[in-house]
Amino acid sequence: MLNYGARMKIELFYEDLTPGKAFDLGSRTVTREEVIEFASEFDPQPFHLDEKAGKESILGGLAASGWHTASMVMRLLADNLLSRSSCRGSPGIEKLQWRKPVYPGDTLRAKATVLEQRELKSKPDLGLAKLEITVTNQDNIGVLSQVSPLMFVKRGATEEKGDA
Amino acid sequence: MLNYGARMKIELFYEDLTPGKAFDLGSRTVTREEVIEFASEFDPQPFHLDEKAGKESILGGLAASGWHTASMVMRLLADNLLSRSSCRGSPGIEKLQWRKPVYPGDTLRAKATVLEQRELKSKPDLGLAKLEITVTNQDNIGVLSQVSPLMFVKRGATEEKGDA
Repeated sequence: MLNYGARMKIELFYEDLTPGKAFDLGSRTVTREEVIEFASEFDPQPFHLDEKAGKESILGGLAASGWHTASMVMRLLADNLLSRSSCRGSPGIEKLQWRKPVYPGDTLRAKATVLEQRELKSKPDLGLAKLEITVTNQDNIGVLSQVSPLMFVKRGATEEKGDA
Repeated sequence: MLNYGARMKIELFYEDLTPGKAFDLGSRTVTREEVIEFASEFDPQPFHLDEKAGKESILGGLAASGWHTASMVMRLLADNLLSRSSCRGSPGIEKLQWRKPVYPGDTLRAKATVLEQRELKSKPDLGLAKLEITVTNQDNIGVLSQVSPLMFVKRGATEEKGDA
């Protein structure tokens, strides 16, 4: 077994990610400085940088880039689930919805539920678990949802290095 | 017309984003420092932080977080298309594929093609254009693709502020 083992005990293997299983991914509050810093680097549309432009936009106020929100959710997922799992990455995202704006000061709470799991023919030591991740703010309003397939090593597998 | 007008002339309205229209979104080279900085903040999985862990993983080497790659693509999209458009944001991403790893030193080149466009009944001043964005590296290998619906103000519309 590789990398994660050195940092944290692996408790979750492919076999543990059965459909219906749910995980609390914890919460995170986003600051105005973080919103502007991320947008300045990756998404410099005016409504992500400036209060006035945000107010005049359909976002209704300075709001985080959707990629910033998705990246914060990735951090919650990594800290609260993947770090104690045999996760080996992801081929992509099936659907990502930015349902409502995320404003400075908002506290995001994320949950993950396993939708389905399947073996990978090309990688017999790995299986794929498809997670639905939903994110709400402090008013319990849904701000983001995504369907995220992730690869996990099977319990007891002798993982071999292969092509990506 | 709002915000962007103050910064750059709006050349692209909803009506201009007709199916089949293609845009070069330019290129960007990613450094090792950027890969590690982004991963440290948003995606601290070992294969995004450490060469040895990357080599031992199916990524084959230290590789950028997929969210980092997607965020860099957002910047290319913003700088090279949205900044001269009437874009008003996006409801989400329909499909995001991380096809191959992105390694430090890689130069990403992005293209966008309009797949379809449609009016928005709930927002008569806006229309939705669905872009397919493909990203290749310096070896012309596809590393990312996504389908991205974006809202644009129509030419000559008197935009009114509404709910997000």
